[in-house]
Amino acid sequence: MCGIVGYTGREAAAPIVLNGLSKLEYRGYDSAGVAVFNEVENDIDIVKTKGRLKNLLEKTDSGKAMPGGCGIGHTRWATHGAPSEKNAHPHCSDDKMVVMVHNGIIENYQELKDHLTQKGYTFYSETDTEVAVKLIAYYYEKTDHNPLESMSRALLRVRGSFALGIMFKDRPGVIYAARKDSPLIVGQNEGGAFIASDVPAILSYTRNVYYLDNMEMAELHEDSIRFFNMNGDEIEKEMVNIKWDAEAAEKGGFEHFMMKEIHEQPKALKDTINTYVKDGKIDLSSVGISPEEFAQYHRICIVACGSAYHVGIAAKYVMEDLTGLMVDVDFASEFRYRNPKLSQDTLVVIISQSGETADSLAALRLTKEMGVKTLAIVNVVGSSIAREADHVMYTLAGPEIAVATTKAYSTQLICMYILSMYAAQVRGEIEESTLGNMLKEIVLLPEKVASILTDKERIQWFANKFASAHDVFFIGRGLDYAICQEGSLKMKEVSYVHSEAYAAGELKHGTISLIEDGTLVIGVLTQSHLCEKTLSNMQEVKSRGAYLMGVAENGSYYLEDMVDFVVYVPKTDPHFTTTLAIIPLQLMGYYVSVARGLDVDKPRNLAKSVTVE
Amino acid sequence: MCGIVGYTGREAAAPIVLNGLSKLEYRGYDSAGVAVFNEVENDIDIVKTKGRLKNLLEKTDSGKAMPGGCGIGHTRWATHGAPSEKNAHPHCSDDKMVVMVHNGIIENYQELKDHLTQKGYTFYSETDTEVAVKLIAYYYEKTDHNPLESMSRALLRVRGSFALGIMFKDRPGVIYAARKDSPLIVGQNEGGAFIASDVPAILSYTRNVYYLDNMEMAELHEDSIRFFNMNGDEIEKEMVNIKWDAEAAEKGGFEHFMMKEIHEQPKALKDTINTYVKDGKIDLSSVGISPEEFAQYHRICIVACGSAYHVGIAAKYVMEDLTGLMVDVDFASEFRYRNPKLSQDTLVVIISQSGETADSLAALRLTKEMGVKTLAIVNVVGSSIAREADHVMYTLAGPEIAVATTKAYSTQLICMYILSMYAAQVRGEIEESTLGNMLKEIVLLPEKVASILTDKERIQWFANKFASAHDVFFIGRGLDYAICQEGSLKMKEVSYVHSEAYAAGELKHGTISLIEDGTLVIGVLTQSHLCEKTLSNMQEVKSRGAYLMGVAENGSYYLEDMVDFVVYVPKTDPHFTTTLAIIPLQLMGYYVSVARGLDVDKPRNLAKSVTVE
Repeated sequence: MCGIVGYTGREAAAPIVLNGLSKLEYRGYDSAGVAVFNEVENDIDIVKTKGRLKNLLEKTDSGKAMPGGCGIGHTRWATHGAPSEKNAHPHCSDDKMVVMVHNGIIENYQELKDHLTQKGYTFYSETDTEVAVKLIAYYYEKTDHNPLESMSRALLRVRGSFALGIMFKDRPGVIYAARKDSPLIVGQNEGGAFIASDVPAILSYTRNVYYLDNMEMAELHEDSIRFFNMNGDEIEKEMVNIKWDAEAAEKGGFEHFMMKEIHEQPKALKDTINTYVKDGKIDLSSVGISPEEFAQYHRICIVACGSAYHVGIAAKYVMEDLTGLMVDVDFASEFRYRNPKLSQDTLVVIISQSGETADSLAALRLTKEMGVKTLAIVNVVGSSIAREADHVMYTLAGPEIAVATTKAYSTQLICMYILSMYAAQVRGEIEESTLGNMLKEIVLLPEKVASILTDKERIQWFANKFASAHDVFFIGRGLDYAICQEGSLKMKEVSYVHSEAYAAGELKHGTISLIEDGTLVIGVLTQSHLCEKTLSNMQEVKSRGAYLMGVAENGSYYLEDMVDFVVYVPKTDPHFTTTLAIIPLQLMGYYVSVARGLDVDKPRNLAKSVTVE
Repeated sequence: MCGIVGYTGREAAAPIVLNGLSKLEYRGYDSAGVAVFNEVENDIDIVKTKGRLKNLLEKTDSGKAMPGGCGIGHTRWATHGAPSEKNAHPHCSDDKMVVMVHNGIIENYQELKDHLTQKGYTFYSETDTEVAVKLIAYYYEKTDHNPLESMSRALLRVRGSFALGIMFKDRPGVIYAARKDSPLIVGQNEGGAFIASDVPAILSYTRNVYYLDNMEMAELHEDSIRFFNMNGDEIEKEMVNIKWDAEAAEKGGFEHFMMKEIHEQPKALKDTINTYVKDGKIDLSSVGISPEEFAQYHRICIVACGSAYHVGIAAKYVMEDLTGLMVDVDFASEFRYRNPKLSQDTLVVIISQSGETADSLAALRLTKEMGVKTLAIVNVVGSSIAREADHVMYTLAGPEIAVATTKAYSTQLICMYILSMYAAQVRGEIEESTLGNMLKEIVLLPEKVASILTDKERIQWFANKFASAHDVFFIGRGLDYAICQEGSLKMKEVSYVHSEAYAAGELKHGTISLIEDGTLVIGVLTQSHLCEKTLSNMQEVKSRGAYLMGVAENGSYYLEDMVDFVVYVPKTDPHFTTTLAIIPLQLMGYYVSVARGLDVDKPRNLAKSVTVE
């Protein structure tokens, strides 16, 4: 997850490139570099530094030390090779004929490196990028210095993802670009042409941009831009005018609403807990459900869609464990056409952020027609479901803008924990001391969530490595399986990765045939009595080539020997682990999406509130 | 799904090629052709015919009319372009410099065709193969007649799947081969070298074969074979000695056990039905469960793994609809660690083909320890689960060899239908006439299944088109959702396609973001009261680019306007549709696997009976 900027035009390139890079630091930084055509010496100057961008600014006198109107720059986050000046971009062929910046991962770089080594090439860095630049240089020689043909021949041999900015020493003033599965835009104003990983990098110079598609190339001159496919045929691209609106201001310093809302979770949890837990006691007076009424129910039927359905799955484990109640969970779209058998001793719980979800609303109405009581867990005050349900328990998440839910999901979970404890209390199934301890623990959740977020960059680093994954599997048992289902949905909806959650014990009954070398399998291991079993299922897939990530509680250090990458979350009551373990999985979905340059807050095909069937 | 054979050596090539092709007719046939080096005229002779292979045998006098020791041949099944002599293989460049046979699909053939047309190429057929052969010819010119480099440069530009046999006019006696995602083997004996789509084609000549991997090429001479990667680097391959065992005889004329067992379903269903339905009445005397005992249960808890779990999902819909019983379905691996709440009025039904499934056996023992009654549906007589359960209802599927279950699944379903009707009967919840009609209908299922199998080649044709799909989604509502889950598992386990089943109404809550141009979405539409809703969900994904297949009852011709490819199954009682609708989906899984050259009967990573957790 690196950042790329390039400029060719009438202005000095280095300051523009450095300014652009400063807008991309959210994409990660451990080193940075810039390359500019030196028109006097007819050469390309390259300056690189380790650390944050300000080091590069100092070293180049904010770019003034590098005169010239054509340059490319890069902020790096290490994937292949440690953070160092040597491994920083731009990379180049030994004669500096080809100079390149790269965002993405070349998966078959070892095979290509072996091939080039046979041809006599040597390598100064440990990066996949140096292999790619030398492969292009190899074809540049072979094609008598044809830039587009050398690029296409090299890039057709590359597996993985790339966004590239390239300069050839004997083509002064020209920048070439190409992309596959990593973001890259091309911009233009009267004075010149730009490339960048993301719009903000060049927004202060131009609002006219082209979105490069997969396996497309561009050739940028000061006054013209041309686009090509990998056959070298010229293609037409549509220019897009960026209408920057007030949204940016509302994001409170975050790049996307989703990340802002992930960070609002501690406050949202706290507000929700404080509403229903007062002075160490559960207080559902605002919900209007009396202990007597609750005590008469023998069955709870949770009906919801999407992430709210996953809250139901988790709640089933918690409530069944704490109480003698039977808990069913059903998709609203299935429930409403199932001809459900409901009796008076059943409470139907409807969960919906918007309170307008069409299927959930229909399920609510069907339930009421049958004379069965309903309780709604809703975020939007005064919404249809809130108005029509017999009882309403509001989540205090505040407005949620990102299509993929994070803070609404987390507050819905809190409500279900509280309802479960309340049910256990009114039914006399929980000891007072146990309940007291759980209530002490629940108020600690907000700060535990906050503590996980402080280490989010480790997840970013890992997500970056798997940004081009096509298939990901989440496995767990019991409550951990419920966590997996929500983690998988986050990955799907914002990153378009075909991920799937499996009860760990079921994988062997068919799906394990999909596991191949390098498939990412994420195991959730928060339930101590089930960890050993899940871990053994993880070993089974590892022996078939899977790469293992684990999410586990602090102190589970025995995992280090068996799992390739472990994320630890604070310990808590085993009923509440979903609230903590989901955070790294939300971050995974978010960061993979950012690495792939997708529209995080508004994923394709999706709407925030599904008001049709 | 075509068949390829090639030979170069001391014998006459044409008879060997034609004999080999005759062993590959199971891969489809609408036309066939053969090409042989004519050493006298220093040219390549090509003969093609429409129809079955015998036409080609007649036209070439069983190959004797085409002398020469080096040739390639092909049986075709049309995907691009109608079946015709013109569209039959081998295809060639206009000067016959390059002659080629191809199995697979070139997805970007239109883009490549446009590119070649710009370069002045013209096309005599409608096939994707002609585009590929001319692309190779184009690079053959460009690389001064370098066979391997021209192949690799062309093949790196190709998206899709291919197994290729190629001859170059100025390389007499040499055959080149390459593959990606379509099967191809290379064989050798003292007299020569072979290529073929499958082992049986050359088994009468040699047992020494090499399995070509994806993106590998081979160069075959009479007395030597060399292998290369796409960089042109020579690679070592391991020779495999085929130990043909008695298995072939046991397959009764089918290529694979899975197909044999798919065809055994009518008999297996009939045997199972006849055991429990006698003289138009349900007879569970052999199960040893009295009407009095059954009437005392108020809840049925079905516990199983894999496909047997999917039987449970379908059974829940059937049983809840016919009776007032509450039915739960649980994964055995989850149930056993869930601390399940079971009372004496619950009957736990365990479903397992082998009767040895570790998690199911543990669930059975746990249930018995709690003093709760169990009924097992098992195929293997005397297995552990059969011995330990309180009651056993045997499926009469006979031995199942293929790892992916077909006939055991179908007979398990029959048992659950019969149990459901029995429960409704002993509880007085079904009218005698309704029950009578259902019992009349159930005995018709075997011949209805048989009738679906007569049209299996239409499914084969369609599966062929989607053989290189990476992601497939199955959607349905109610019972159709249960069918989807098993259909998806079949696709996964034998074809390694990441397929997933979704309740149609849930797709919009996240997963729809995975739909892109050409994604195959299979809708199951057997439940008339839900069809309209599912169809509207199918329209939603179609408008986002999905390609739609539908499985529906005879007479649902209104689908033709909305769904791209419809498979019809006979009408039956709506509770029994799973038995019919699953057949086309079993065939889809099978044929995609065959098209991809996978080990259908023994998919990687899987075992027939999962006797560990």
